[in-house]
Amino acid sequence: MRQMEQTADLSRRHFIIAGAGAASVLATNPEIGLGSAAHAQGAKPLPNYVAWKNPKAMIVHSTSTLETRRDFFGTSGITPADELYVRNNLPAPSDEIVANRDAWEVAIEGVRKPRSIKVGELKRLGVESVACVLQCSGNGRGFFSHKASGAPWQVGAAGNVFWSGVPLRAVAEAMGGVSDGRKFITGTGGEKLPDKIDPKTVIVERSVPLAAMENALLAWEMNGSPVPLAHGGPLRLVVPGYFGVNHVKYLKRLAFTEAETDVNIQRTGYRVRPVGQKGAPTQPSMWEMSVKSWITHPLKETDKGPVQIYGVAFGGMNAVKGVDVSTDGGKTWKAARFIGPDLGRFAWRTFVIAADLKPGSHTIASRATDTAGRVQPENFEPNERAYGHNGWSAHAVKVTIV
Amino acid sequence: MRQMEQTADLSRRHFIIAGAGAASVLATNPEIGLGSAAHAQGAKPLPNYVAWKNPKAMIVHSTSTLETRRDFFGTSGITPADELYVRNNLPAPSDEIVANRDAWEVAIEGVRKPRSIKVGELKRLGVESVACVLQCSGNGRGFFSHKASGAPWQVGAAGNVFWSGVPLRAVAEAMGGVSDGRKFITGTGGEKLPDKIDPKTVIVERSVPLAAMENALLAWEMNGSPVPLAHGGPLRLVVPGYFGVNHVKYLKRLAFTEAETDVNIQRTGYRVRPVGQKGAPTQPSMWEMSVKSWITHPLKETDKGPVQIYGVAFGGMNAVKGVDVSTDGGKTWKAARFIGPDLGRFAWRTFVIAADLKPGSHTIASRATDTAGRVQPENFEPNERAYGHNGWSAHAVKVTIV
Repeated sequence: MRQMEQTADLSRRHFIIAGAGAASVLATNPEIGLGSAAHAQGAKPLPNYVAWKNPKAMIVHSTSTLETRRDFFGTSGITPADELYVRNNLPAPSDEIVANRDAWEVAIEGVRKPRSIKVGELKRLGVESVACVLQCSGNGRGFFSHKASGAPWQVGAAGNVFWSGVPLRAVAEAMGGVSDGRKFITGTGGEKLPDKIDPKTVIVERSVPLAAMENALLAWEMNGSPVPLAHGGPLRLVVPGYFGVNHVKYLKRLAFTEAETDVNIQRTGYRVRPVGQKGAPTQPSMWEMSVKSWITHPLKETDKGPVQIYGVAFGGMNAVKGVDVSTDGGKTWKAARFIGPDLGRFAWRTFVIAADLKPGSHTIASRATDTAGRVQPENFEPNERAYGHNGWSAHAVKVTIV
Repeated sequence: MRQMEQTADLSRRHFIIAGAGAASVLATNPEIGLGSAAHAQGAKPLPNYVAWKNPKAMIVHSTSTLETRRDFFGTSGITPADELYVRNNLPAPSDEIVANRDAWEVAIEGVRKPRSIKVGELKRLGVESVACVLQCSGNGRGFFSHKASGAPWQVGAAGNVFWSGVPLRAVAEAMGGVSDGRKFITGTGGEKLPDKIDPKTVIVERSVPLAAMENALLAWEMNGSPVPLAHGGPLRLVVPGYFGVNHVKYLKRLAFTEAETDVNIQRTGYRVRPVGQKGAPTQPSMWEMSVKSWITHPLKETDKGPVQIYGVAFGGMNAVKGVDVSTDGGKTWKAARFIGPDLGRFAWRTFVIAADLKPGSHTIASRATDTAGRVQPENFEPNERAYGHNGWSAHAVKVTIV
C-alpha cells in the first residue's frame, strides 16, 4: 500500500531509466548476455517506471530487478501491486502502450483461422479470474554459495496475485481451434529490441507445453486494476503454476507451435544444468514450479513470550496441503494451520503457528507438502544459474529471543 | 492500482484538509450535525490524507466521502486499497498515529481482567485473516428520490477487502473472558474531538450485538499491507457482515457492555425509520448487511456483438448463492456464473454472463440470492436517511448497443 507520507519525496527518488541500447540490455539480462555488474548492493532508488511502488517494501537490485522485502508479505494471502517484485528481461516499453489499452493488438497464430485481435475484442470473448503465485525462476538464488550470475534474490522474487482475462482456450476456439500437430504455446513480448543485435539473442519469447492451455489466461487485470506497465500491461500471458518468465509481458504474439522457439531465452536460457555447464535445449526448462514455503515472521529478534510464527506456502502445480514448522532447525516439527480463504490450486496460503520460545537463538524452518505428496527437500542441489531453490534448510531463519 | 502517470501531478491535487473544528465536523457528518453543504458535485481533488488514491477511480463527494467509480470494480474479486471508498465520520487523525503502529494502545473493558494493550502485543495473541465486503450504510442513497441528507452514493461506497488481525475472541480470552451480563461490543474511535461540543454528539462509538464476536477482528493489515490511516490504521475493529460504520477506525477502546452506547451516532444515528421521522433507539440499527448485487459492465454504451456482462454480488451475513441477470429490465432472467476463487461467506463474488444484444437500448439488472434463500427485492422502501438500498430495479443500468 502506497502511504501518503511516501509520495512527497517521490520526485527525488526518480532517475532516468537507461535506454534500450545494447549495453543496458546486456547489463540487465545475464541470462542472455555477459553476466551483470548491476547487482552491487545498496539502497538504490526506485526506477522511474516503478516509481509508484512502496520504496520501503522493495530491495532494488537493479533497474530491472526489484525484490519484495521478506517482512512485507503480511498475512492476508495477497501481494499488493505496489509491493510486488519486478523482473524485466528487457527494459519496459514506453508507457504510451497503456494509454489506450483496448487498442493493444496480439497476433494469434497456429490456429485454424489466425488473425490479430485487440484487447477490446478479447474482453468480449470471455473472462475468468485466477489467483496464482508469480515467482521468478531465480527466487532463492541468494541462498546458493556458488555465486551464480543474476540477481541474488532471497524469497522476495515472488508474490500472490489475482489475474483476470480471457481463457486462452476461448481465444483458440474463437479462431477455429488449435492447428494439428501443435505441441507448444509460444508467447512473444512487445519490448522494443535494441538495434544492431541479433533479435534472437535478446527477444523475450517463451514456449510452454500445450497442456498449460488448460489454465492459461490472456490477462488485462491484476489485483482488480488494469495490469500495470511494469507487470506486463496492457496484456500478459498468465500460466498458473509456471515460473514467471513464462508469463510473457506486453504480449504481442501468441502462437501454437510444433516446436519450442529457438531464441536464446528458450534454447539455452532458463535451463537447469550442473554448475559450470552451458545451457542447452536438452536440459529441463524452467516451467512448472515446485512446492515451497518460507517464514515471514519473526525474522531476526523478538521479545520473549508468546509469538505467532507465520509464512507463506504453495504447491506450484498442485494445491499446498500442509506446512510443518520447526523451531529447532529441523529436529522436530509441528503442523501449522492455514488462515484466510483458500484462493485455489495455484495460490499461496498463509500458515500460522503459535510458539513460546525461550530466550536465545532459534532456527525456525517451514516445510510444505502439496496434494500430490511432494515435500520440500532439506537441501537443493546447486545448478549453474541457481534456479528453483526450494530447500527448507536454506530458507530457515535464525531468530534471537531476548 | 496507482499508475506511474498519476504521480507527477499529485502535488497539484493536494489541498489542505479542514481542521477538526466544529464547523467542519458538522459539515462532514450530517448524521450527527445539521445536514451538509459538502455534497455539491464536481471534480474535486483528492484530499491530502488520501492523496495516494487513484484519482481516476474516485468520485470525491466531500473531504470525508469518496466513492469508487462503478466501472473500476474489475473482475478479480478484490478492491485495491487505492480504489477503495472512504467515509469518515470525523476528520482522520494526524498521520503521526501510524508512525509507530505497534505502540498504538487500545483499552479493553468489560472483561474479567481489563487493561490496555498495544498493537505489538495484540499481534502475539493470535492472527486470522478474512475477506469481507466493507459497505457504507448509505450506499445506494443516490437511487432514492426523497433527497435524504448524506453523500449521494450510488454503488461505490463498497469494496471487498482482506483484513488480518487478532480475533476478538482471543483478546477476550487473554483477559479472563467477557464479564457477565455483557450483550454488546462497543468500539470507540480515536479521532480528535472538536472543542466546545458535547463529545457525545460527535464521537464515533458504535455498539453491535455480542454475537458479532464470532467473526470480529482487531485488524492491523488490509489487503496485505498495514491498514492505511484513511481506512482506520493502526487498528480497526472489523465486523464481517456488518455495515462499515460498525468497523470502528483508530480503535482506542473496545468494551463489552450491558447496553448500547448512548452517543448520538448510536442512539439516533444510523437508525432506519420512515421519511420525516427523527432517529430513536427503538428503530433498527444499521448492523447486518443484506443480499445485494450490481452490474459493473457494460454501463452505458457498447458495440454490438458478443459482450460479457459482469458485476459483483454478496449476501451480507450469508454467502451469496447465485445471481440472475436480466437484459430486458426484469421480464426474463438467466443464471450468471461466478468466476475466481470463493473468498468466503462475507466476501463478494464476481458474476459473469455472456450476451449478444441487438442494437438499441437494454436495461440490464442483476438479482442475487444468498444461502439462506433471501433474494434482492425489486424495490426498496424509502427511509429517512436512505440507508440499506438493495432493490435490483434501481441498481439496473440502461445500456445502448450501437
